[in-house]
Amino acid sequence: MRKPKYHVFVCTSSRINGQQKGYCFSKDAVSIIQRFMEEIEANELTDEVMVTNTGCFGICSSGPVVVVYPEGVWYKEVTPDDVSEIVELHFINGKKVERLEIK
Amino acid sequence: MRKPKYHVFVCTSSRINGQQKGYCFSKDAVSIIQRFMEEIEANELTDEVMVTNTGCFGICSSGPVVVVYPEGVWYKEVTPDDVSEIVELHFINGKKVERLEIK
Repeated sequence: MRKPKYHVFVCTSSRINGQQKGYCFSKDAVSIIQRFMEEIEANELTDEVMVTNTGCFGICSSGPVVVVYPEGVWYKEVTPDDVSEIVELHFINGKKVERLEIK
Repeated sequence: MRKPKYHVFVCTSSRINGQQKGYCFSKDAVSIIQRFMEEIEANELTDEVMVTNTGCFGICSSGPVVVVYPEGVWYKEVTPDDVSEIVELHFINGKKVERLEIK
């Protein structure tokens, strides 16, 4: 299989009992996922960037949380409007969006 | 925050519409998550290894799928009984479980 260069994980508060409720979900995390998919497609990055929704990362007060591997960069309080900046700066230019980074 | 040394993502077929159905879920992926949590606790690895459930990785025919970052190692057809080997070989000894690896 072809592994992605960047794998972006977005907490959508998906629980293993099938429930989807929690802080990130309540703060529009599903729209964050959708914006990533749109931006990745628009920038022709579908071969390089994979997007995956997840359950809780355990730091809900920093949510919505987005984690990018393999670098292990954690972003906090992400909004749908932040997505284009992450795509352009991080995935196209290889730089972190420092204002959103959890240190 | 303290970042995990290993971050293991287990597909539990969690969909962003709140449904949880799909191949990995049907093949006992929730038990895989639970076994990881038990083994990580039993081996006192809670500071080093984080477990997160996810939605579909898009390679359902290889499921249940488990992905370990930052290495980007993808494991296929994982069963609950494989978990102790992944914990011991990969997280304790730093080696991949080659028989499960998706190349």
